Amino acid sequence: MVKVKRINHVSIAVPQLQAGKTALSILGLATTPDETVADQKTDTCFLQTIAGETEIELIAPAGNESLQRFLDRRGSALHHISLEVEDLAAALAELKAAGVSLIDEAPRMGANGHLVAFIHPRATGGILFELCQCA
Amino acid sequence: MVKVKRINHVSIAVPQLQAGKTALSILGLATTPDETVADQKTDTCFLQTIAGETEIELIAPAGNESLQRFLDRRGSALHHISLEVEDLAAALAELKAAGVSLIDEAPRMGANGHLVAFIHPRATGGILFELCQCA
Repeated sequence: MVKVKRINHVSIAVPQLQAGKTALSILGLATTPDETVADQKTDTCFLQTIAGETEIELIAPAGNESLQRFLDRRGSALHHISLEVEDLAAALAELKAAGVSLIDEAPRMGANGHLVAFIHPRATGGILFELCQCA
Repeated sequence: MVKVKRINHVSIAVPQLQAGKTALSILGLATTPDETVADQKTDTCFLQTIAGETEIELIAPAGNESLQRFLDRRGSALHHISLEVEDLAAALAELKAAGVSLIDEAPRMGANGHLVAFIHPRATGGILFELCQCA
């Protein structure tokens, strides 16, 4: 069984980061600098609350065709929940052994230098979850 | 400007709570007892991580027609982000004074005895946000 420490972030897909930041500016959240995540072909930044550890991630396509298709279909929308685990490779091995469908069977490089991997949404009733391991 | 303390929860719409819990059981999260929220016409329960304050809420319609339409259109899907504030009435007054579209102009009773109010998604680029004040 996967041991989830916390929700690292909730991700919102937007066509471009600046448009997303402008749309959410009424919430008064602090914004981290933009980052291009080469391995995911996305641009990303994070919106932070005053006292919470869980952040909101904005992701925009920078060559990521799957994310572009999601945006074409739904417009800006909630995209995935990222769950933090202690040992991502071990969590993926456990899930794989249990027959759970994975998009990424091995950790990949995500934003903030974190290791990440996506679970296939058919394993979770249609909801997209990322697992992440912080450095 | 609204001062958001933390993300209280991220909400997933599901046709029925038990189906949602079963679909997400591979994540190994603890589950709170089901609650029917009369004012929202929803059934709800929360999935908790080991160390995080932010939870995942499952919501299923119990007469809520808007939620039923969402499910008819999208199936089980991420539904809203709930942001915790110190003083919900004050936050709503500030947003209203700034011309922000609100679904609820006054606090309503939500799950766990929290006061809640939804911001209209046209004010946030299409994303549904709830504000909540914990007792």
